[in-house]
Amino acid sequence: MRKSIATVSLSGRLIEKLEAIAAAGFDGVEIFENDLLFHDGPVRDVRRYAADLGLTIDLFQPFRDFEGVSDEQHKRNLVRAERKFDLMGELGAPLMLVCSNVGTDVADDDGRAAAQLFELAERAARHQLKIGYEALSWGTRVRTFDHAWRIVETVNHPHIGLILDSFHTLALPDDWSSLRNLPGQRIFFVQLADAPRLGMTPLTLSRHFRSFPGQGDLDVPGFLQAVLATGYSGTISLEIFSDETRSAPPRLTAEDAFRSLRFLEEQARKQPVRQENASEARRRRVELFDPPPPPVISGVRFVEFAVDQRSERPFAALLEQLGFRHLGRHRSKEVSLFGQGDIRIVVNREPDSFAASYFLVHGPSVCALALETDDALAALGRAEAYGAARFDGRVGPNELAIPAIRSDAGSVIYFTDREIAADFETDFEIDPDAAALPALLTRIDHIAQALPDGQLDPSVLFYRAVLGLEPEAPVVLADPYGLVRSKAVSNPERTLRMPLNISESRNTVTARSVSNYGGAGVHHIALATNDIFAAATSLKARGAVILPIPVNYYDDIQARFGLDDDRLAMLRDANILYDRVGDGEFLHFYTMPFEDRFYFEIVQRIGGYDSYGAPNAPVRMAALAAGRMSARDLAEL
Amino acid sequence: MRKSIATVSLSGRLIEKLEAIAAAGFDGVEIFENDLLFHDGPVRDVRRYAADLGLTIDLFQPFRDFEGVSDEQHKRNLVRAERKFDLMGELGAPLMLVCSNVGTDVADDDGRAAAQLFELAERAARHQLKIGYEALSWGTRVRTFDHAWRIVETVNHPHIGLILDSFHTLALPDDWSSLRNLPGQRIFFVQLADAPRLGMTPLTLSRHFRSFPGQGDLDVPGFLQAVLATGYSGTISLEIFSDETRSAPPRLTAEDAFRSLRFLEEQARKQPVRQENASEARRRRVELFDPPPPPVISGVRFVEFAVDQRSERPFAALLEQLGFRHLGRHRSKEVSLFGQGDIRIVVNREPDSFAASYFLVHGPSVCALALETDDALAALGRAEAYGAARFDGRVGPNELAIPAIRSDAGSVIYFTDREIAADFETDFEIDPDAAALPALLTRIDHIAQALPDGQLDPSVLFYRAVLGLEPEAPVVLADPYGLVRSKAVSNPERTLRMPLNISESRNTVTARSVSNYGGAGVHHIALATNDIFAAATSLKARGAVILPIPVNYYDDIQARFGLDDDRLAMLRDANILYDRVGDGEFLHFYTMPFEDRFYFEIVQRIGGYDSYGAPNAPVRMAALAAGRMSARDLAEL
Repeated sequence: MRKSIATVSLSGRLIEKLEAIAAAGFDGVEIFENDLLFHDGPVRDVRRYAADLGLTIDLFQPFRDFEGVSDEQHKRNLVRAERKFDLMGELGAPLMLVCSNVGTDVADDDGRAAAQLFELAERAARHQLKIGYEALSWGTRVRTFDHAWRIVETVNHPHIGLILDSFHTLALPDDWSSLRNLPGQRIFFVQLADAPRLGMTPLTLSRHFRSFPGQGDLDVPGFLQAVLATGYSGTISLEIFSDETRSAPPRLTAEDAFRSLRFLEEQARKQPVRQENASEARRRRVELFDPPPPPVISGVRFVEFAVDQRSERPFAALLEQLGFRHLGRHRSKEVSLFGQGDIRIVVNREPDSFAASYFLVHGPSVCALALETDDALAALGRAEAYGAARFDGRVGPNELAIPAIRSDAGSVIYFTDREIAADFETDFEIDPDAAALPALLTRIDHIAQALPDGQLDPSVLFYRAVLGLEPEAPVVLADPYGLVRSKAVSNPERTLRMPLNISESRNTVTARSVSNYGGAGVHHIALATNDIFAAATSLKARGAVILPIPVNYYDDIQARFGLDDDRLAMLRDANILYDRVGDGEFLHFYTMPFEDRFYFEIVQRIGGYDSYGAPNAPVRMAALAAGRMSARDLAEL
Repeated sequence: MRKSIATVSLSGRLIEKLEAIAAAGFDGVEIFENDLLFHDGPVRDVRRYAADLGLTIDLFQPFRDFEGVSDEQHKRNLVRAERKFDLMGELGAPLMLVCSNVGTDVADDDGRAAAQLFELAERAARHQLKIGYEALSWGTRVRTFDHAWRIVETVNHPHIGLILDSFHTLALPDDWSSLRNLPGQRIFFVQLADAPRLGMTPLTLSRHFRSFPGQGDLDVPGFLQAVLATGYSGTISLEIFSDETRSAPPRLTAEDAFRSLRFLEEQARKQPVRQENASEARRRRVELFDPPPPPVISGVRFVEFAVDQRSERPFAALLEQLGFRHLGRHRSKEVSLFGQGDIRIVVNREPDSFAASYFLVHGPSVCALALETDDALAALGRAEAYGAARFDGRVGPNELAIPAIRSDAGSVIYFTDREIAADFETDFEIDPDAAALPALLTRIDHIAQALPDGQLDPSVLFYRAVLGLEPEAPVVLADPYGLVRSKAVSNPERTLRMPLNISESRNTVTARSVSNYGGAGVHHIALATNDIFAAATSLKARGAVILPIPVNYYDDIQARFGLDDDRLAMLRDANILYDRVGDGEFLHFYTMPFEDRFYFEIVQRIGGYDSYGAPNAPVRMAALAAGRMSARDLAEL
C-alpha cells in the first residue's frame, strides 16, 4: 500500500523532515500546519522540494473546531477555511483533515454539523479540494468513527469523506467491530498509530505517548484488517505525537516509522480473512508487504567480544574463572575461542577489524552475536527487507563468510544455520581435549542490553521485524539513582531472550554503561547452569569475584516465600538471588563488572520459570551502585 | 509540627538518604522496606546511625495485601508479619503501615478484614508495636479513608489506628469533607503528597508523578487543615514517588522537601478556622511555621550581567542598540550602569567578584536580580526562614550593602526597598543628562529562565515560598527538536513575572542554554514598550538585529484573528508576533541571541493581556533553531 507519514511525527525543521521521510522510502507526507507556518520561505518551494524528493503531499492538517458552531462563528470559520484552501493550492495538497470540534460551545446537533460541513465541502470543491472528517476521541460531541460517519453520510457530498485514525478508535473502550462495514470508497485517508496502555486519558496518551504500530499495546493489525475489509485501497499514514520522537534524530525516526508500516502490513496479511470476502484476500496478496518468514532461532552460536592488547588477558582470566576453556586460536587472526557446554565466546583483538573499530568507541564489549537459525540466507533476506544494513566482514583465505547485518545499535548480528554452524570452528585450531571437558555452564540464557534514551521502542520493533521476536511485558526497575524501564524480546521457544533496558536518569549503573560510550551495549550476559550451587562453589574456587548481596535481602525472601533455613543459608552464603512464580523458581548470581562495562550472570531455571527475576533487579542495582558510587561521588554530580 | 519523610522520596542508598534528610532539618524518617533490604550491613547500625543524626524512625512501610484474604493465606501473612515485627524491633520503628489489599482475591467482607487486622494488632501489641491502616486509592475493596476508618473502628484495638495520605484522598473525585470529623487520637500518622492533574489514573499518577506539597494541583493545605481539625497533633510526613526525585541529588531533594512542609504549614495557618473550633486555632498558632509575610514586590530594580573584558564591549553595543544609555561608572569597581525608563542594567566585569566567579561557570549571563520590595530586611528574613542562603557580597568603602540571597539556581537575588532603592545609584557617578532622556522601553516585563531537567517543581516552590509568587497555568511548547515545559511564577500585581522553562530533550535551544553551562540561567529578558512599532523602527535604526519570522506565520494569524491588511503588513515588516485573548492583545519581537546565551524580547501589552504569547513560542523556537542548527549539525548528534 502507499505509505505516508505526518511531519509532526519527526523532529526538526520542515526541509530536514522531508529529506528524512524520503530517504526512509515513504511515498507521501501529511503536512502539519505548524511546520509550514514556521518554514522560512515560500510555500511553493516546499511543494517543489517534496516533488524533487519523490514525495506526494497527501494531506494538510489539522483544521480545528469547525462543525456545530453558531452561525456567526461559522461565517468566520469559512473565511479561515478559504485562507487555508489558498495555502493548500500553493502547497499542492488535495485533502484537508477536519477534526471533530473540541470547543466548549458546540451544539449537540448533527444536522447543524452536517449543514456546516456541506458548505465547507462546497467551498472545497470550488478549489478542487476534498475534506476528510475525523473523530477525535476527546471531541466535545463527536468522538467515534461511526458518529463521524453518520454525519458524513448526512452531508452526502462527493468532496467530503471520512478519515480514520487507529489511535482514536482503539484508545476508547467502545466496540469498533462495525468499522469493517464502512464503504471503502468513502474513506478518504487512514492514519495509523499505536500506544502503550499507561493508565491515562486518551488526550494525555495521544499528545505525548503515541508510538509507531508494533511498539504499543493497541490492535493496529486488526484495525488495518478491518480497513481492508471495507475495500479501502488508499494510503496508510502514520501520525505520531511522541515526546521521544520530538527529540530524536529525524532520519532514525523515519527509518523506524517505515519499518513499522511494513511490519504492520505483514501482520495484517496474516490475520484471518472472513470467508465471504475473497476480494479482500486477493488484495492483501497484492498489496501487503511480504518478506521472507522470520527465522527459527535455536540459540546463540557465539558471542564475540572486542578487546585490545591491554584488556585481553584480564578478560581471558575472567572467562577462565567462569569455567571457560581456551579452545583454540584463529588460523589467521588475533582471535581466540573459548567455550564450555554449548557456549562459545570469541575474543577478538585483530587490528584493523570491525571489532577493533567497535572497541575504539565502546571499549571492551560485545561487538557481535551469532544466532543459530534454520536458514541463514533467508534470515538475511528478511533483515534486509526490513531495512537492516548488511554487514560484510573482512574474510581471509579459506575463512567462512557468515551472513550478517548491523543491529540497530551498531553491533553485528551473524546468522548461522546447520551448515555454517558445523563449519564455524574450522577457522580455529581447536584443542580437542579442552572442548571435551564437562561443563557447569551449559548455554546462554539471555543477553541484556542498555539502550540510549528514546531507543527502546525502535529496538523492540527492530527485533520483532527482523528476527521475529516478541516483546514480553514491560517492567520498571528501581536503581537507587533512577528508574530503569525494561522490555525483553524473545522467541516462542525461549532459545533467544534479550532484555532491553533504558534509563531516563544518567546516574544509574545501566545509564553509565551507555552514556560513557555513546551507544547501546550489552551490559550483561546470563549463562545457564543445571546446578547453581555447584557453579557458585566452582567459580569461587577459581577466583571469580561474586557480587555481594546484603544479608537483609535474605530475611525478606524467607518472609515472602517461606524458604526453609538450610536452603536460605545456602543462597545467602553463595550470594544467590531467588524468585518464584507459581511452581517455577529462578536462582541467579552475578560477577562483578568488567571495566565498568558488562558483567555475567549465572542462572538456573526450575519448573518452567519464564522471567528474569525482576523483583531482584533493585537489589542487584543497589549492590552494583554500592560498589561504585559513594555519597561523595554523588554530591559532585 | 514534627516533620518526617519516607526514604523512597529520595534517590541514593540508605545512609546517603538519612544524611540528606537530617541535614535538611527533618525530625524523623519513614523507612521504606527496600531501602533496608538493600542496605549492606546490620539493621541495628541503621538505627544507631539515624539516632546519631538526630532522626527518629517513625514508621516502617509498606506491609501489603494483608486484610480480607482466605484463612490459609492469613496464616502465611501472620508468619510474614512476625518476621517484619522482629525487623522493626531491631530498627526501633514503632509503627507499621499496612496498606489496603490490591490483590485479585480479596473478600468484600469488612468483618473478615477487621477480624484479621485485630489478630495483627494483637501480635503487634506483644512486640510493643502499632499498626496503621491506610486506604490506597486503587485498593481492591478499600479505597477511601472513611472505609478504612469503618474497619479500624470495628477492629477497636488500641494498637491499630488510621494512616491518612493526602494523595489517596485528593486524587479521587470523592467528597472528603467528613475527614475533619475523625477522632484525631485514632489517626496514627499523616502522609502528605501533592500531584499535578495530568489526565492519568491515580495508580500511574502516584507511582511516577507525585510531588511535594505546593508543587502540584491538589488541595493539600485544605487537607492539612482538616487533619488539624480532628485534633491530630502528631507527625506530618512526606511520601513521594517521583521519577524526577528518584534521580535527583538527595541533598537538594531533602531541602526542597523540607521547604514544602514549612510552606504547607504557612498555608494551612492562613486557612479560615470554623468558629466552633477555637482549640484548633490555638494549636495552629503554636505548632505551624510562621515566617515573616512575603514581600510586596513593586518591580525589578536592576538586572546585573556578568561579562569579561572580551564580551563587555559587544554587550554594551547591544544595550545601546536597544536604546539604553550608559548612565555612569561605579565609583570603585569595574561596573557600569545602563538605563532607560525604569529599567536599570548593571554590567559587571570586576575581577575577583561574585560576577567574575559566575562568569567562569556560565559565560556572559545574568548573575543577579534586584527586586524592589516594601521591606528588604523582612524579605531577607523570610527567605532565610525558608532555607535560602544569605549572600554577602564584597562591599567597598561607602558602598551600599544590599540584603541578598542565593537563588536556587545559584545566582543572586537582591532585596531593595524605598530607602535602598533611592540610594542605589549613589555608588555610581551618574551622567544626569543621559538619565533624563526619553525612553522607548519603560520597564522589565518578564524574565525567563531555563532550568536543568528535574528543577521545575523545586524552583516553583522556591519562588512561591521565598518571594510569595504564585504559579500560573503550565504550558507545553514545541521546539523543533523537543518539547519545552513552562510554568510562570508571578506576583498578584504582575510587577514581577518569571517564566520557568525546562527541556527534556538536550537538543532544543532552551536546553542548550542550560546544558552548555551546567546550571539554570536567564535565557531572555522581556522589556515593555508603549509603542512597539516605534520601538522596532528605533532599534532597527540603531543597528539591532531582530529575529526574522517566516512570512507564512502571518498568513495564519490573519486567518485566526482576522487582522486587517495594513496592521498585518506592519507586524510582518517588523517581525512582530501577535497574540490575542479576549480583548487583550500581545505584540512582541526578539533580538538575536547574544553568544548563544540569552536574548531580549520587546513586548507591548494592550487591554489587560495577562500571558506570554505561548502560541507563538514554537515559531520563535523554530526561528532560533533555523539560525543555529542545520540538518548536518543534527545528523551528527
